[in-house]
Amino acid sequence: MSVRVAINGYGTIGKRVADAVAAQPDMTLVGVAKTRPNFEAERAVAKGYKLYAAGSGTVDSFAQVGLPVAGRIEDLLKEVDLVVDAAPEKVGRENARLYQAAGIRSIFQGGEKPDVAEVSFNALANYAAAKGKHRVRVVSCNTTGLSRAISVVSSRWPVEHWEATIVRRAADPAETNRGPINGIMPTFQLPSHHGPDVNTIFPQLSIATTAVVVPTTLMHVHVNHVRFTAPPPNSAALLEAFRSTPRFHVFPAWAGVDGTPQVMEYARDRGRGREDMMENVLWENGLRVEGKDAYFFQAIHQESIVVPESIDAIRAMFDLAPDAAHSIAITDRTLGIPPP
Amino acid sequence: MSVRVAINGYGTIGKRVADAVAAQPDMTLVGVAKTRPNFEAERAVAKGYKLYAAGSGTVDSFAQVGLPVAGRIEDLLKEVDLVVDAAPEKVGRENARLYQAAGIRSIFQGGEKPDVAEVSFNALANYAAAKGKHRVRVVSCNTTGLSRAISVVSSRWPVEHWEATIVRRAADPAETNRGPINGIMPTFQLPSHHGPDVNTIFPQLSIATTAVVVPTTLMHVHVNHVRFTAPPPNSAALLEAFRSTPRFHVFPAWAGVDGTPQVMEYARDRGRGREDMMENVLWENGLRVEGKDAYFFQAIHQESIVVPESIDAIRAMFDLAPDAAHSIAITDRTLGIPPP
Amino acid sequence: MSVRVAINGYGTIGKRVADAVAAQPDMTLVGVAKTRPNFEAERAVAKGYKLYAAGSGTVDSFAQVGLPVAGRIEDLLKEVDLVVDAAPEKVGRENARLYQAAGIRSIFQGGEKPDVAEVSFNALANYAAAKGKHRVRVVSCNTTGLSRAISVVSSRWPVEHWEATIVRRAADPAETNRGPINGIMPTFQLPSHHGPDVNTIFPQLSIATTAVVVPTTLMHVHVNHVRFTAPPPNSAALLEAFRSTPRFHVFPAWAGVDGTPQVMEYARDRGRGREDMMENVLWENGLRVEGKDAYFFQAIHQESIVVPESIDAIRAMFDLAPDAAHSIAITDRTLGIPPP
Amino acid sequence: MSVRVAINGYGTIGKRVADAVAAQPDMTLVGVAKTRPNFEAERAVAKGYKLYAAGSGTVDSFAQVGLPVAGRIEDLLKEVDLVVDAAPEKVGRENARLYQAAGIRSIFQGGEKPDVAEVSFNALANYAAAKGKHRVRVVSCNTTGLSRAISVVSSRWPVEHWEATIVRRAADPAETNRGPINGIMPTFQLPSHHGPDVNTIFPQLSIATTAVVVPTTLMHVHVNHVRFTAPPPNSAALLEAFRSTPRFHVFPAWAGVDGTPQVMEYARDRGRGREDMMENVLWENGLRVEGKDAYFFQAIHQESIVVPESIDAIRAMFDLAPDAAHSIAITDRTLGIPPP
Repeated sequence: MSVRVAINGYGTIGKRVADAVAAQPDMTLVGVAKTRPNFEAERAVAKGYKLYAAGSGTVDSFAQVGLPVAGRIEDLLKEVDLVVDAAPEKVGRENARLYQAAGIRSIFQGGEKPDVAEVSFNALANYAAAKGKHRVRVVSCNTTGLSRAISVVSSRWPVEHWEATIVRRAADPAETNRGPINGIMPTFQLPSHHGPDVNTIFPQLSIATTAVVVPTTLMHVHVNHVRFTAPPPNSAALLEAFRSTPRFHVFPAWAGVDGTPQVMEYARDRGRGREDMMENVLWENGLRVEGKDAYFFQAIHQESIVVPESIDAIRAMFDLAPDAAHSIAITDRTLGIPPP
Repeated sequence: MSVRVAINGYGTIGKRVADAVAAQPDMTLVGVAKTRPNFEAERAVAKGYKLYAAGSGTVDSFAQVGLPVAGRIEDLLKEVDLVVDAAPEKVGRENARLYQAAGIRSIFQGGEKPDVAEVSFNALANYAAAKGKHRVRVVSCNTTGLSRAISVVSSRWPVEHWEATIVRRAADPAETNRGPINGIMPTFQLPSHHGPDVNTIFPQLSIATTAVVVPTTLMHVHVNHVRFTAPPPNSAALLEAFRSTPRFHVFPAWAGVDGTPQVMEYARDRGRGREDMMENVLWENGLRVEGKDAYFFQAIHQESIVVPESIDAIRAMFDLAPDAAHSIAITDRTLGIPPP
Repeated sequence: MSVRVAINGYGTIGKRVADAVAAQPDMTLVGVAKTRPNFEAERAVAKGYKLYAAGSGTVDSFAQVGLPVAGRIEDLLKEVDLVVDAAPEKVGRENARLYQAAGIRSIFQGGEKPDVAEVSFNALANYAAAKGKHRVRVVSCNTTGLSRAISVVSSRWPVEHWEATIVRRAADPAETNRGPINGIMPTFQLPSHHGPDVNTIFPQLSIATTAVVVPTTLMHVHVNHVRFTAPPPNSAALLEAFRSTPRFHVFPAWAGVDGTPQVMEYARDRGRGREDMMENVLWENGLRVEGKDAYFFQAIHQESIVVPESIDAIRAMFDLAPDAAHSIAITDRTLGIPPP
Repeated sequence: MSVRVAINGYGTIGKRVADAVAAQPDMTLVGVAKTRPNFEAERAVAKGYKLYAAGSGTVDSFAQVGLPVAGRIEDLLKEVDLVVDAAPEKVGRENARLYQAAGIRSIFQGGEKPDVAEVSFNALANYAAAKGKHRVRVVSCNTTGLSRAISVVSSRWPVEHWEATIVRRAADPAETNRGPINGIMPTFQLPSHHGPDVNTIFPQLSIATTAVVVPTTLMHVHVNHVRFTAPPPNSAALLEAFRSTPRFHVFPAWAGVDGTPQVMEYARDRGRGREDMMENVLWENGLRVEGKDAYFFQAIHQESIVVPESIDAIRAMFDLAPDAAHSIAITDRTLGIPPP
């Protein structure tokens, strides 16, 4: 069986999920929908993706600049089994009615509230929970990054409490109308919404998060502090747990990766498409266990980290793989994420 | 009595401490020393400060550009009771020999290791410890900010553990040769050195800190998490404790101060010199107590926060005031820091 | 006679013009109007300025946060001879009706189109043109900077053509919702609107300008190229012309002022209020004449450069000074701009 | 014949030229040399490139971190016909002795002075000049961008004078130790060195350039002003000239490419490796001819623009293609640069 997939919204996330779907052996990318013609729409056409007008967009507006459009989003939805909603925050919820009317399944982004779907999803953490579901929410980039790390740690050692300060990038690279240019903006929600969002995946976990926004476009950085109930791991065991898990990349100290700019440079050198880094990024010298307390940094590429998760969500919903490990292996092989 | 003071090093900190000393009723600014002529040296002369050549600098290099110099640092040291060392990190320790040779007292910056002095100092926390001392170290901007906050909290409620993530500005505004321009750099020391540095002021405190560097020049931001042993304060009581302490500024929500850029704008509007904000800056809506846990943000102006502390350190060393409260009151009045 | 002045709009420009008016011997600041309460409104009250609700703002919204308001803008306008409109771009034109209804004179910002007023104004260039006028437009920060420089040069040597590339700051320091964070944005109007705007002051000048926006908040930089008809000045004569004119500051090479960050640092050290630099800033080593071509950089502080011009405009409109030189001398003395 | 090529220096430029050489049908990448092990060295090994220790680097330092090294640079040089020097600025000149001792040909970067080589090179402009040469200098990124544009324009219409303001990126994306973070730095050489550098390619051209450095990492932007002697082209003809030339990319207005961030996003979406944009980037709405004056913006990707030029230089030196057009066609096809 090949699941027929539509992508509604063709920006940062949508275009990446489209490429990822197109690379799967058990899925077919039927088409992508976009509101306005721009260079991204031109690229979609250049790749041979069928393009549809979405939202307030018109078929004419594409035709006028020479971009062929196959119809409107409503037409596209008739041809598919599932739609991945990659519209801007809050718009996904409105789109849900369209999907329901079309009688198809749907995946929503983490920018939507949890109740937009039957379940919130992270492949490592709760793959099975999405089996057979009709509406699934892939949690946000930061929640995905946290959930993966929590999955690794809490499945091996008993966690008393997890704490994370999330240092957020202020805009994506091409979002030129967002600031600040020079300054730090605290997120005045204490603790921040990320903790409760993690609890949609790990309901029992004691977690508190805080966040600040800083003037960079590349990646988020999480400063994690985990308190264990005895016995805790030592640093080597904790590092090894991350190293041996899919979708984690641990840089050795000699690599000279001093921060997110070098992580992105590495991703560009690796050359698996764009400068995407779909793994959680950790540093050998950026992790330390002291008694019952572990501290570690991780960098999260906000543009791409949810992409493999979206693929696994589709596979879970249609029961295309026996379990998470099988799905992750296919996804990672097709997307060029190296196995641990 | 008027303590005769020299400033050795006339950059970000030195020029501010010079202005502050000149404003005190019980101190006399005898002169300032600088290695090279530049616009800051010209400003010192314009203010009527006597200028001396320091370090590898020569009297001639100043004369050649028309800046009158009164001699070398060694000459200056003969005329004073105390020198405030504001040389770049690590240079202060080397300078210590000069000061000893001159038989005068000295104050060092927090960039030097604690053993450069007899005691590490923060006015609110341990004013009395500097009384009669000959060598005092005023702790760094971040440690000063933490120590003030800890002083307020731990003197009122029993703290089980203090945790802070320090989001550091990458450079001062005029340091144009430092980056990163776009990226987040974790500080690969876990926990960071700030915790142990706070312990030079609060030896008994359980504290762990972490740090990242971000591309901004304005202020640091601390994300604090305090765990209390019962009974904890409520949010209102904790806010009131900060509001009623000198050198704290708490912005109400309606002020529209969304981050460090607006804090600096406020400082500029207030107009007390440069855009200095010598207080710890907190936000009414950036503080919350949840059970035994308090979370709060504070912004720290790295350029100026240690200035009033340096003045109080002088006063303590020469026993010019009966206690911290008296010294702080004089310092704050002369520097334009409003009383609580 | 003391001209009674209102300020409508109390942001970046309005608050500075208010302070400037309050410092004049021949003007009275009657009150300032603002739409919403924030830290700037609180500062206005702290300075003793009478505050009025403007635009969609209500008296109640200020009262609720404890800021006393004297009424609405309409009330304020009844008490004054002139209003300086410092509302956001395009809003000034709408406000013009209010001012006309009140039967008072008005000054508009350069963000409005020229026909909002009877004349566009720059003190050095066309002071006399504003004499007795009822509606005057003070040209924008970039046009002001260009007009001053053109005034100096074209009054001494015959200019064949003036060309300038304007490297624009993307946002003011506290405008945290504007980008880009990392990138250069060309201004897709070729030549840019600045040239025609200069022609509102110098109708005969052959000028072409271009512009790009860059991720900084501090100052604009103009890269000027002037072609002279023979005979041109030499570098020394050109520099001397700038040095001997009010509202120009020329940094010597030894000052170590390598770019706009050090200019702002100098302004902070000078301490005349905020970090304002109301002069055109040039560099001794940033000017060169080669044959008939002169090249020079100038930095323009977008927040403050129009402030003294606004004061001179008032003086011209009410004929409070015999000529530009007298008005400029008073303005500069009261605002702390050193004479040449 | 397959020219055997070594790359000395494996940073921003070196690693790209290595990949480009490896993709050529008439060249063989024998090995790459690097001073220190880091993530880039690891990537070279992962790609199967033979790695050699260069400069002060030791074979041991690589071995210690598990990176196999085939020897020292001197060993590598024995195996090749030509070396591309991609060492940091000024080091290339020192390396020249090594290359001479090895009796091999060499290509230098534009950061070296022109006399390091027999000829300065740009494929479009003077391909034939490098034929049979032993030492060739590929001009810098900015000079390459200018030379390409000049080649297009001056071969079609008579240019009286060319003027360009170069808005330079302050650092490459992974150079985290360079600033400024917030500010504009004029280049205090007037006119800037770029004009004379262009004259190494176009000796007769009247050109003057100026430059400023701004806090971005992505691309340079050139603001060009060309004055023609009559008759000039109109806008459409000038645009068409660029569009019909290899290594030019002209964005239409509807593409929504508002600045360099969207150019890089386009490059990432195109997916030809890293986020490289080896073409000069122009905008349909960023070009205008007015009488005898043409104004246009172009963006230059400093990391990659010289890469195809280096390949063509090799081809010219060894006479592997009949002319520039043939070489450019092969290079562009292998590197994924679309034909005009």
